[in-house]
Amino acid sequence: MSKARPTVLKIGGSVITDKSVELKARTDTIDRLATEIEKANVHNLIIVHGGGSFGHPRAQQYGIKGGLKDDSQKIGFAETHHLMTVLNGLLMDALIWHAIPAVSVTPSSVIVTKNGRIQSFDHASIGKLLDMSFLPVLYGDAVLDSELGFTILSGDQLVAMLATQFGAERIIMGTDVDGLHDADPKTEKTAKLFEHLTLNELKGSQSRLGKSTVCDVTGGMFGKIVELLPALEKGVPVTIVNATKPNNVYMALKGERVKGTVVGDERC
Amino acid sequence: MSKARPTVLKIGGSVITDKSVELKARTDTIDRLATEIEKANVHNLIIVHGGGSFGHPRAQQYGIKGGLKDDSQKIGFAETHHLMTVLNGLLMDALIWHAIPAVSVTPSSVIVTKNGRIQSFDHASIGKLLDMSFLPVLYGDAVLDSELGFTILSGDQLVAMLATQFGAERIIMGTDVDGLHDADPKTEKTAKLFEHLTLNELKGSQSRLGKSTVCDVTGGMFGKIVELLPALEKGVPVTIVNATKPNNVYMALKGERVKGTVVGDERC
Repeated sequence: MSKARPTVLKIGGSVITDKSVELKARTDTIDRLATEIEKANVHNLIIVHGGGSFGHPRAQQYGIKGGLKDDSQKIGFAETHHLMTVLNGLLMDALIWHAIPAVSVTPSSVIVTKNGRIQSFDHASIGKLLDMSFLPVLYGDAVLDSELGFTILSGDQLVAMLATQFGAERIIMGTDVDGLHDADPKTEKTAKLFEHLTLNELKGSQSRLGKSTVCDVTGGMFGKIVELLPALEKGVPVTIVNATKPNNVYMALKGERVKGTVVGDERC
Repeated sequence: MSKARPTVLKIGGSVITDKSVELKARTDTIDRLATEIEKANVHNLIIVHGGGSFGHPRAQQYGIKGGLKDDSQKIGFAETHHLMTVLNGLLMDALIWHAIPAVSVTPSSVIVTKNGRIQSFDHASIGKLLDMSFLPVLYGDAVLDSELGFTILSGDQLVAMLATQFGAERIIMGTDVDGLHDADPKTEKTAKLFEHLTLNELKGSQSRLGKSTVCDVTGGMFGKIVELLPALEKGVPVTIVNATKPNNVYMALKGERVKGTVVGDERC
């Protein structure tokens, strides 16, 4: 493992794709983010991105998350993984074009889950890439599962695992909203942004904000943060910023104050 | 591991790309091969492909094979790996389009070499993919190396490792020549094709055909077969066919006789 503690940057699928149109990548946004990442020039960075309109529609059509029930799903598993590599390729193109030595690491090649949770994870190549000052890039993926046959591994679960495994200094979540609100900011104009929540405050608000995925009043953000609990409990603070707004990811990477939510017992 | 012994099919970079033009894929050939693979419908198949004009030019420009000597090579490593994923993506597109449940496994994510030879290889996902009747697809790649920093892992070394690891029944090498000749068939019109060589005959002809990479009078084919020695010594026969000619890969996969060279003590 590299001596300096890494930063894990998550880039949401809703940031780099238009979720309303299948296979529509936001290539201008991808290029802007690559520019910001180049400019911030953070050492020991790991990037994880989501699937947006590349991974999700096909995964949903074939019920990949629920596991193998029927052989006809197999082509859906193959397609979902393939489409994720295509989206990943667009981001890799942009990062490398910006002279960033970024190297993709394929989650389904190195991870097997058990009932949807990471069971084994060969992270040797990621550790070595960090040691050599490369930028490893991973993504939510269709993966094999020892109980279900296969499933979907979310980028968020992967972020928590990487942050824990590599003793990350911080997690930056680049999403399409300003942070965690007390209601869904996309539908509720009066939704109030939490600027800072301690781990205890976060846990305390569970019954109010997101008792279950179905009852997540925050529009899904609470559920994403809950997925990061293993890292938060190890003391890794999480900063949520709106990555659809220029310069936010750059400022967050530089440790500058950005409108957003900080979760954890340290302010970034 | 799956009970039936797998077939390992290598598709040469010179088959699916035009090596004289950087980044020129032969998409018609890729589609034809996907059709042949679909039609042959072989269970327990592993595919490995080469880099051709995607991987090689950039790897050569930055001296990736020789290892890390200078930080300026790092972007070259990132580019070489990325370009291999792009070529792989074209093949995956074609296979999946032909309803083949093919899943790419990224060599650099699961393999670390030591002085250019495979040192560690996490093949859990490949074994599980075979068990579930998926078709794992790998490729020659830029990989991390515990001594050199990084290097190039040839598809041929990978073929031998996979065949040995998974107890393959046979290896089929799809190349751009008819087989192993006593001279380079691309430059010597009188080059004579060997139809069958036992392992002992192959070893006996080493001093005559390919004392070293530089002195490989066969135009490189002898060197490729020498790379397969670990599998040949385990009794895995190797069939070399010309994959640029329609139907050869199909017939070889079906176990039908094709003009070519069989190396090993069994005829396919």
